[in-house]
Amino acid sequence: MHNEPLLMSDRKIPVAYFSANRVLDKQERLDRVRVILSHTTHPGNIGAAARAMKTMGLKHLYLINPRHFPDPQADAMAAGADDLLRDAVVCATLDEALQGCVFVAGMSARVRDISHEVLSPRQAMPLVAQHAAQGPVALLFGTEMSGLTNEELARCQVMVRIPVNPEYTSLNLAAAVQLVSYELRLAADLGESGAPELQPASAEHLEGFFSQLEQTLVEIEFLDGKHHTKLMQKLRRLYARARLEQEEINILRGILTLTTEYHGKLKRANLSDK
Amino acid sequence: MHNEPLLMSDRKIPVAYFSANRVLDKQERLDRVRVILSHTTHPGNIGAAARAMKTMGLKHLYLINPRHFPDPQADAMAAGADDLLRDAVVCATLDEALQGCVFVAGMSARVRDISHEVLSPRQAMPLVAQHAAQGPVALLFGTEMSGLTNEELARCQVMVRIPVNPEYTSLNLAAAVQLVSYELRLAADLGESGAPELQPASAEHLEGFFSQLEQTLVEIEFLDGKHHTKLMQKLRRLYARARLEQEEINILRGILTLTTEYHGKLKRANLSDK
Repeated sequence: MHNEPLLMSDRKIPVAYFSANRVLDKQERLDRVRVILSHTTHPGNIGAAARAMKTMGLKHLYLINPRHFPDPQADAMAAGADDLLRDAVVCATLDEALQGCVFVAGMSARVRDISHEVLSPRQAMPLVAQHAAQGPVALLFGTEMSGLTNEELARCQVMVRIPVNPEYTSLNLAAAVQLVSYELRLAADLGESGAPELQPASAEHLEGFFSQLEQTLVEIEFLDGKHHTKLMQKLRRLYARARLEQEEINILRGILTLTTEYHGKLKRANLSDK
Repeated sequence: MHNEPLLMSDRKIPVAYFSANRVLDKQERLDRVRVILSHTTHPGNIGAAARAMKTMGLKHLYLINPRHFPDPQADAMAAGADDLLRDAVVCATLDEALQGCVFVAGMSARVRDISHEVLSPRQAMPLVAQHAAQGPVALLFGTEMSGLTNEELARCQVMVRIPVNPEYTSLNLAAAVQLVSYELRLAADLGESGAPELQPASAEHLEGFFSQLEQTLVEIEFLDGKHHTKLMQKLRRLYARARLEQEEINILRGILTLTTEYHGKLKRANLSDK
């Protein structure tokens, strides 16, 4: 399934890669991010990390002396992200992996004696996305058991600590890659919202609905003089909270109209019988 | 390693659980969150989800008809989170899993025809944390392959969509649990919002309302065979968005009851005239 992994020396950086000074779009920023896994023990974690990266639009996986790679377990865990494994850059040293990088963020679960600036992923990823405008940036992950070495720490501009349950800090490596990649995707997302927005109806249409609702409730004798205003206020509050769309107002008014028409029909039938 | 999984009927809810009106701290909010995995295919995902939950301080795992559970693969992937597996509540139905829940957030990767309000995890988790002040809340995850069913969707107050690479949306189930739990942990940290909190009705009371609504709409001939299901889905979506309180359900059911009674009266009057 695999070709031999690429070595640094084989890797071509496109000429135009850093030439433009224009504002980069989101994917261009993400394309400048390297996820570097140092001395990873379990190949399954490499595959799962590749999958996690790809779901968030990251492409460039660098591996410093992985214990087993390529490996069938990595392939199995990568699911459809085998292209990231195929293109993964295997490095012998930290220097190779960091070559050309303008910013390095190190991931750490541990508190250290000589502490760097420690940021949360939410604080740090906007910095990473900003620096990507200048050149390649790196997210550096240490081994599963012991995290980053002091040598690795010394190369980081910021330390990133994922907030976890202090009583159970056992975050899986690929899960950490997932969380950080997610935060980075959001940070690179300058002004793009995925969710379809509601299209709330206009105030006039809303008033038209409330007016018909009130008439109908009087008609069926739900509203009388006593609690009339208070009940209408409660109903207004309820429907205000729902932020009714025009189509929904049409449905609700359709129900009200049918209620009234049905009554009217019966009454007319009633009268004409007399 | 496992005891037999708990069934709903064995589960005791502490007496003092909902009595206090004081402000809940972060862990107390998280303690009211259920992660519900529906019809999970791979037991490894259940274990990995438990680990993901525990790193973020979530405890209560509910499983609706898991294909294999308990299972050695689940144990292996749970790492130190085997307590969550041991305490997991295995349910036969969605109703069991949602019993008592005041807010249900459904996870969806897909775009649907009749869309609920779709929020990002960052938008939705503060709502989940707020509602946890009122009672149990649920994060509902569908199967690995097909996500939530329409029946499951209909029970959600909001849909949550994790922003992913549109060209590779293959987010692992446990990775989704990890991301959402992480956002929830951060959201639970924010303490009280300024807005007055709602007292949402329970899932059972909501279903009682929808059932009466449907009967009444058939009675007044608003619903016929043709668009019946689609219209009910739209109405469900509307009222889901409003997050009805118990008092509001009482008002709405009062209106429905009166409508039916009034119709009956008119019909009888009509008949006796003939």
